[in-house]
Amino acid sequence: MAPRNIKLTIHYDGARFHGWASQPGKPTIQGELENALERLLCEAVDVTGSSRTDAGVSALGQVAHVKVDSPVPVENFARALNKLLPPDITIADAVEVDAGFDAISSTKSKLYRYSIYTGPVRPVLDVNHCWHWPGSLDVAAMAAAAKSLLGKHDFKSFASAADKRSSSVRILMRCDVRREGDWIYIETQADGFLYNMVRNIVGTLVEVGRGRWTPDKVKEILEAHDRKEAGPIAPASGLCLMWIEY
Amino acid sequence: MAPRNIKLTIHYDGARFHGWASQPGKPTIQGELENALERLLCEAVDVTGSSRTDAGVSALGQVAHVKVDSPVPVENFARALNKLLPPDITIADAVEVDAGFDAISSTKSKLYRYSIYTGPVRPVLDVNHCWHWPGSLDVAAMAAAAKSLLGKHDFKSFASAADKRSSSVRILMRCDVRREGDWIYIETQADGFLYNMVRNIVGTLVEVGRGRWTPDKVKEILEAHDRKEAGPIAPASGLCLMWIEY
Repeated sequence: MAPRNIKLTIHYDGARFHGWASQPGKPTIQGELENALERLLCEAVDVTGSSRTDAGVSALGQVAHVKVDSPVPVENFARALNKLLPPDITIADAVEVDAGFDAISSTKSKLYRYSIYTGPVRPVLDVNHCWHWPGSLDVAAMAAAAKSLLGKHDFKSFASAADKRSSSVRILMRCDVRREGDWIYIETQADGFLYNMVRNIVGTLVEVGRGRWTPDKVKEILEAHDRKEAGPIAPASGLCLMWIEY
Repeated sequence: MAPRNIKLTIHYDGARFHGWASQPGKPTIQGELENALERLLCEAVDVTGSSRTDAGVSALGQVAHVKVDSPVPVENFARALNKLLPPDITIADAVEVDAGFDAISSTKSKLYRYSIYTGPVRPVLDVNHCWHWPGSLDVAAMAAAAKSLLGKHDFKSFASAADKRSSSVRILMRCDVRREGDWIYIETQADGFLYNMVRNIVGTLVEVGRGRWTPDKVKEILEAHDRKEAGPIAPASGLCLMWIEY
């Protein structure tokens, strides 16, 4: 029997995990999923996730594919897996897809949301899901700076030095900055992201928001193709993978 | 020098704590506060909290008083303590008050909010701050039932057997049930609460919301003065102490 290909949509709170990718002896999202699948199906299964999110990064729309031999009806997959998963990971959806579907290479675009809390009091219920910046930020300036990043560019200035991919050219389709009360949300959508790209963009936009840089400076940083020009990296806790388009 | 009396307003995420009250060898809110104060002031300090919240219960407006000899200006109290406290506990406010202020006996009323999430997918980012009830609940019926609890009553039917206070008469000033999208919030305000009273009221209202009981049944339960008549206790995770009126 040819293996079936199952597409999983996964939500998780990244706070207590050492990121997506399995590491021996450390709690990871991939590791928890592979454990749960092995218990459910009594076969070892590789879970291929679209994004290897870092420690502390959450997701409300990670996607993975798994190739399984088991005849378990896909309708029962999510419910059965959720009973075996810890409370901070859940399968939101499981569907059977063509053998050609690949969670990584079939991706058209992804959207990440970054959350900043600007109120004076530490937001204890959300402290693992935001960057607490207790001060004022000029959202209009940040939004103007964000606009200059839209389009197809070499984003090398915003890539971690640890990124070893051959090309650092990506298409940024959305980079919206908006305020809701004491919260600021930065939503970035691209055909793909370099390592730490969103957090480096956010850290740079915050330098604009606090008045250290003008919005024009961000275009200069982009054109410098040099990570040392950009702002400091924003904390992982504020980042959440919202959805992946296929 | 007569000791000064400091009123603290405290926010915390109760998820990883064994409740408010100090217990040897276990993380508690009171224990963390007393440790931080002792490190700050170099004197042992008793923290008297208004509500001895249970394990898993959070607060965005717990109040405590502490008697201290230290001459540290009260303006610096919150900032200095917050550097010593873990990220899931914070002092929102610290003010010097009359010697006669007592966090427990000076209380006029308190408001607790209970949060229920009714969407189908486990809310991973809020899983420690709600009761996940993936199904429909009749909010209008719950609100009607809640109204019958308003006023001065003997709430013995909603008190845990572990409550040893002499009187179970309390004045319930507010018991609102409202829906916001997939969330249902139940806000209860009273001059005081019996042990587990809010969670027992919520568990009973959910029995109404799911259609097991009519709203009228709740009045019968109230008048029975018997805990066995009420619904099952709702999980601690949904409960949050919002404010205390003095």
